[in-house]
Amino acid sequence: MQLSDREPSTAVKPVMWEELEQLIATGQSPERIEAYLAALPVGETARVLSRLTDDDRVRLINVLPADEAAGVIGELPRPQAVELLERLAAATAATLMHLLPSDVRADLLGEVRTETAEAILDAMHPEIASSARAMACYAPDTAGGLMITEYLAYPATATVTDVMDDLRAHADRYRNYSSQYAYVVDRERRLVGVLRLRDLLLARRTQPVDELMIRNPLAVRADAPLNELEAFFDERPFFAVPALDETGRLLGVVSRDAVKQAGSDRNVDDYRKAQGIIREELRSMPVLLRARRRLAWLSINIGLNVIAASVIAVYQDTLASVIALAVFLPIISDMSGCSGNQAVAVTMRELTLGVLRPAEVMYVLGKEMLVGIVNGLALGALIAGVAWLWKGNVYLGLVVGAALALNTMVAVCFGGTIPLVLKRLRFDPALASGPVLTTVTDMCGFFLVLSFASMALEKLTGVA
Amino acid sequence: MQLSDREPSTAVKPVMWEELEQLIATGQSPERIEAYLAALPVGETARVLSRLTDDDRVRLINVLPADEAAGVIGELPRPQAVELLERLAAATAATLMHLLPSDVRADLLGEVRTETAEAILDAMHPEIASSARAMACYAPDTAGGLMITEYLAYPATATVTDVMDDLRAHADRYRNYSSQYAYVVDRERRLVGVLRLRDLLLARRTQPVDELMIRNPLAVRADAPLNELEAFFDERPFFAVPALDETGRLLGVVSRDAVKQAGSDRNVDDYRKAQGIIREELRSMPVLLRARRRLAWLSINIGLNVIAASVIAVYQDTLASVIALAVFLPIISDMSGCSGNQAVAVTMRELTLGVLRPAEVMYVLGKEMLVGIVNGLALGALIAGVAWLWKGNVYLGLVVGAALALNTMVAVCFGGTIPLVLKRLRFDPALASGPVLTTVTDMCGFFLVLSFASMALEKLTGVA
Repeated sequence: MQLSDREPSTAVKPVMWEELEQLIATGQSPERIEAYLAALPVGETARVLSRLTDDDRVRLINVLPADEAAGVIGELPRPQAVELLERLAAATAATLMHLLPSDVRADLLGEVRTETAEAILDAMHPEIASSARAMACYAPDTAGGLMITEYLAYPATATVTDVMDDLRAHADRYRNYSSQYAYVVDRERRLVGVLRLRDLLLARRTQPVDELMIRNPLAVRADAPLNELEAFFDERPFFAVPALDETGRLLGVVSRDAVKQAGSDRNVDDYRKAQGIIREELRSMPVLLRARRRLAWLSINIGLNVIAASVIAVYQDTLASVIALAVFLPIISDMSGCSGNQAVAVTMRELTLGVLRPAEVMYVLGKEMLVGIVNGLALGALIAGVAWLWKGNVYLGLVVGAALALNTMVAVCFGGTIPLVLKRLRFDPALASGPVLTTVTDMCGFFLVLSFASMALEKLTGVA
Repeated sequence: MQLSDREPSTAVKPVMWEELEQLIATGQSPERIEAYLAALPVGETARVLSRLTDDDRVRLINVLPADEAAGVIGELPRPQAVELLERLAAATAATLMHLLPSDVRADLLGEVRTETAEAILDAMHPEIASSARAMACYAPDTAGGLMITEYLAYPATATVTDVMDDLRAHADRYRNYSSQYAYVVDRERRLVGVLRLRDLLLARRTQPVDELMIRNPLAVRADAPLNELEAFFDERPFFAVPALDETGRLLGVVSRDAVKQAGSDRNVDDYRKAQGIIREELRSMPVLLRARRRLAWLSINIGLNVIAASVIAVYQDTLASVIALAVFLPIISDMSGCSGNQAVAVTMRELTLGVLRPAEVMYVLGKEMLVGIVNGLALGALIAGVAWLWKGNVYLGLVVGAALALNTMVAVCFGGTIPLVLKRLRFDPALASGPVLTTVTDMCGFFLVLSFASMALEKLTGVA
């Protein structure tokens, strides 16, 4: 028995990726390099490969046997795999393409430059190339983009024996097909049934698959989007679903795994987008590229920040009379942002769980208002106490406490509903909710505290 | 052919969940209620059920046939399902437990109060209860917590015919087992081999499974953590892996799907934690509970905010002389937070991808420093220009520009490394990185701008 009882990744002895660099630089034999890669602890391969320079990765691929090289491409983070393909000879890239699963192949071809993709496709086996071209028509997060084209298909006229003979004859090839089903098609390759392979075990040998298959099988259209596929698998215990074109012809098979993975990627993308990392950044990428991508987001934010802070400029005289207020401005800005972002996160989660619909703005508003009143009063009282104790002036406490209390209510109501509104306006809520929220709550918060202070100016002067 | 071509969820005609409430309140027959639930559009069931009151959900469960009721429990968001079990009679809950998959059952029993779990287990079938008790010993995100106990197992002495006869005899029950494998065990139930069901198709009937099985099968220990399971499936094309106790006895089977789902849940959890929603909140929960949970996070934040803002209080005199600085304090605070959070997000992503190890603090520092210099200079120049143009005083521009530039470098270096440091100190980086980062960058930013201003005070007075 081989127990996979290696240590958790945090405890694995670090491998110096410089060793691999050295092996490549000194022109070691492919066997040495293969042995090095094979000896890497589980989970270290991706890290070691990702740290090489682009040039070293090209050398590595050219030195390794094709199946090992395809394995390396599969291990690399996607942006690095794409960059690598751009740098390989088209013939080399084409050979590797043949060895990759059809969905990975289609993703990669969709991400390299058009000229590179064309050159690689031209060098590929014509049949595989035409199937890859067909898949490339579909967006990545649709059935067509997620499907694989390695599946079993038989004519309706075949018998159980025919199928079993074929399975035996091509056992080696089929072992790499991960499906539990075979698909039954008519002469025009239109799907007419699905055959569960294990049902063959329970059947008479002479039975035609026609009798054994599940008729009117469920299928999806190749342009079905990810959220539809997720709903499909959430409700049904299937491992895979066939994807058809508009005329009902079988194009490929979408697995539950592929849909889960795509959904998980999207969720993590949402998190990264909310933090302003819009495209896939790895620290091994060039500094200027990384800096430029991050700046794109930051420069929008600084613009919004200047707009929000201009509210303070309007009230400069008030602030000059009661300088202590300046201490509370960043607190009110930050706390309202926190409260609002909590409401954003609950809405995003409820949308993902399917317990909230984009139209239910009033429902969210009602629910957030109540939390906003409770938390606004609590936080307002807290900050009022701090202000009062600090300066011994109860009016200062009242001004900042009331402003924070009111602004907390505004922030949770706005934060809870802004993703719904953005979604209906077809903006990406994960990307845009944060900056819009912060700008609005900052402006509102600065306005509240400074206008309250202006009204109570007589009671406040002499405070600072 | 049934194409699943329903409209995307945003376009589905809204169903009024109040209708279900009405059906329950007026004591309609189970058939009416079942028909209502069955007629709900795809994706609407969870939303409708989640909106009922706790009491109405209890009534619904008591009215429905057991298998429908178990389906409702499966559709509910987890916290509501747990709450529901707390309110049901133990005998009713036990019946429902029998109908749920073993992993869902173990999760639910692990989340209800201990007394409730004991009462339900006592009312359950002794064999199922003892298997549930065994699973409850393992943490949710380990092989033991993720495994299911519905699997096929045969003695090594069985022949292909024996297995096929058994498969035929129990075809109905086994149809719900989602595995493609059968497991071969010795007399002590220790795992000795794995049998691919479709290999039975390719075998002679008289062959013993002993000859057909894959020997020395890969397995995991029941206490293997989620990250180890993810690495296992990332590298191997298996659908499932057997989980064993320390003596090698087969306890259950962990599917690739269950591991993917748990990983995806953890990623989304990280996102929610970063936004301060620590536990699973749904807006249908009681207001005070929701407010209290959110306040737990907010009150830590307000404390940290007051500490950070106290730096401003120290420099009150400087601020009073150059009131225009008050406009820039929230901008510097917010922008440094944004820059730092980008670095946090890249580190979190690289940790997830496995291309970064927690010990590589210096690597991150080197990479972030360069981005910090580029972006610090860009953002600093921008805000310096704004300040100069606004007040016509180049020194004001220099003070705020230099402070933002320096603080951006501090923020990216600190943001990039803080998740690594927190991880090594065994804090949860997703939860703690944000508040720690914001506090440090706020204090540092306020200190920089106000101490620079103090130094240049002569050149600045008269500005505002």
